[in-house]
Amino acid sequence: MSPSLMVPRPRSVVTAVSTDHIQDLSGPEQRLLKKLYEGLIGGQRASLAESITLVETQHPRKKELAQVLLQRVLAYKREQESRNGGRPQAFRVGLSGPPGAGKSSFIEVVGKMLTGRGHKVSVLAVDPSSCTTGGSLLGDKTRMTELSRDMSAYIRPSPASGTLGGVTRTTNEAIVLCEGAGYDIVLVETVGVGQSEFAVADMVDMFVLLIPPAGGDELQGIKRGIIERADLVVVTKSDGDLVPPARRIQAEYTSALKLLRRQSRSWNPKVVRASSYTNEGIPEVWAKMESYRDTMLSSGELQARRQAQQRVWMWSLIQENVLSHFQLHPAVREALPRLEQRVTKGAISPGLAADLLLKAFASS
Amino acid sequence: MSPSLMVPRPRSVVTAVSTDHIQDLSGPEQRLLKKLYEGLIGGQRASLAESITLVETQHPRKKELAQVLLQRVLAYKREQESRNGGRPQAFRVGLSGPPGAGKSSFIEVVGKMLTGRGHKVSVLAVDPSSCTTGGSLLGDKTRMTELSRDMSAYIRPSPASGTLGGVTRTTNEAIVLCEGAGYDIVLVETVGVGQSEFAVADMVDMFVLLIPPAGGDELQGIKRGIIERADLVVVTKSDGDLVPPARRIQAEYTSALKLLRRQSRSWNPKVVRASSYTNEGIPEVWAKMESYRDTMLSSGELQARRQAQQRVWMWSLIQENVLSHFQLHPAVREALPRLEQRVTKGAISPGLAADLLLKAFASS
Repeated sequence: MSPSLMVPRPRSVVTAVSTDHIQDLSGPEQRLLKKLYEGLIGGQRASLAESITLVETQHPRKKELAQVLLQRVLAYKREQESRNGGRPQAFRVGLSGPPGAGKSSFIEVVGKMLTGRGHKVSVLAVDPSSCTTGGSLLGDKTRMTELSRDMSAYIRPSPASGTLGGVTRTTNEAIVLCEGAGYDIVLVETVGVGQSEFAVADMVDMFVLLIPPAGGDELQGIKRGIIERADLVVVTKSDGDLVPPARRIQAEYTSALKLLRRQSRSWNPKVVRASSYTNEGIPEVWAKMESYRDTMLSSGELQARRQAQQRVWMWSLIQENVLSHFQLHPAVREALPRLEQRVTKGAISPGLAADLLLKAFASS
Repeated sequence: MSPSLMVPRPRSVVTAVSTDHIQDLSGPEQRLLKKLYEGLIGGQRASLAESITLVETQHPRKKELAQVLLQRVLAYKREQESRNGGRPQAFRVGLSGPPGAGKSSFIEVVGKMLTGRGHKVSVLAVDPSSCTTGGSLLGDKTRMTELSRDMSAYIRPSPASGTLGGVTRTTNEAIVLCEGAGYDIVLVETVGVGQSEFAVADMVDMFVLLIPPAGGDELQGIKRGIIERADLVVVTKSDGDLVPPARRIQAEYTSALKLLRRQSRSWNPKVVRASSYTNEGIPEVWAKMESYRDTMLSSGELQARRQAQQRVWMWSLIQENVLSHFQLHPAVREALPRLEQRVTKGAISPGLAADLLLKAFASS
């Protein structure tokens, strides 16, 4: 469990609920924040990188500084957006898919195309497994060699550790920082570990699922319920011998999606084919993404989705936090193993076990 | 919010964590529990009905009595099952589907067939909306006229009120009581309100989705993610003119299910057709359900699933409870509206809002 996810110790009663209570910034702290903020909104990659590192930190004081910086960037962004009629300036796209779907190659090709068209593209990764696997799976610069040398792109590997809640929070805050630094397209990629795909779907404007042209068991890597979250499905590697199976998969997903419940009243999920190798279909994929964005912006659904996401994100952080507070409570820790065992064996009902644990929690 | 879902007031420090602390049963209480228990395991429907009412009560003392009764029934069931080599004696089947799928007719026909074969069948309903709709949707005896007159069947309408957690708990406990009363088949039906279908899927051995032979928009009533929870899909009303569309739907779902992730290593979800009107396919549906049960029992997955469900149920009750404890906290209630508004507007980050609320919660 990440220390950031434990209930903070009561230091003082919070009356003014804002970052205003963090007023005792020392001279060096003020200078650091000023430097980071100015570098960041000036679009300097080094300042962006340093700011994201600050947001990722476990150090209590630095975490507070990160929140002050984030507040300033949010204020800057709101000002910019209000000049833009309240329309979000950046487009947040989540990308997911089973291993072997070719996520990195796809991002490399799409990213290069977008920077070539004058966009600034950042790539973030969510991979809660990276603490154990060494973080080699995603957002790996060595797998996006060209994009990582592109001055209009910024690639950030996955944070090194933390629970899903912690990683999610960090990524959400990194998105804000990237946008403050002028990146108008933010790509968030993930593998299907645990609930990470759902977490990513909950933080982006558009969720794209990449599927390789393979059938049956190979597709078992796709998380249950995630297909229904996709606004767009891209069948990858659609070149050479793989065109016929890619077409078949495209047809199958097209019919399957018809049976699934729609997420939006104005957008029907589409299934397209593309090849990162021949580039075929890549401009069309982007065209579909732009068409999604325009549709959702003009119906107001994109703005509404972002607002709902903010609330969901706040509540899921609270939930994770209060539950870990419960689990760490001495009386609960003492009673839990035996009660859990008795519940599993069917000796007592789960309802009674819950009552008894809650009683133990409330009584001290 | 149901009073049963608030954190219990600390009455005394719980040391011995069991129902043993409820020892001060008065004479009348002891006689009531004895009468209910003996009537229940003797298979009397009146005692079963009264016991379920006790489990549904909001009255604090009666709730405690209900837990004592439940403990005795659990002990009785464990004794019976241990004589049976630890195999569960009853088969729990969840039934769901969009409005118009013909759930009541299907349950009536299947229920009659099963009682005709010597089974004892109980029907429970989960409908968290019934507090507002008047509980007319489900488990309604008037919609299962024949089955409700059948002495081998017991139909219980949905509990009248409560949150999903409360209704789920009541239903889970009612399942145990039905099984104690000798009902070897427990059918749990639900409509797709909120998360009720997922709750039902989490409390049964087998989850069956009923789909009418209609296409497109009519199927939008099917909850996102729920198709993937189905162990069996039944296309209903497959008679007369509806046979061709029913076949088409069957084919579509069969291919769609292939694209979705499997839940079990030993069972592949099937899609069948049936008509409650002509009875065609009904015996075959039951044969599939029995085949599922045999497969899952011999692989040990059914037993493992039940154990996991007990743990999940305990934790979801705890989670709902501690979260409502948080939400009812005075400092949280005071700070929440403004913070939530600022988060929605993008003025502060959800992470900071969560931090501030948790700080307020912990500080008093």
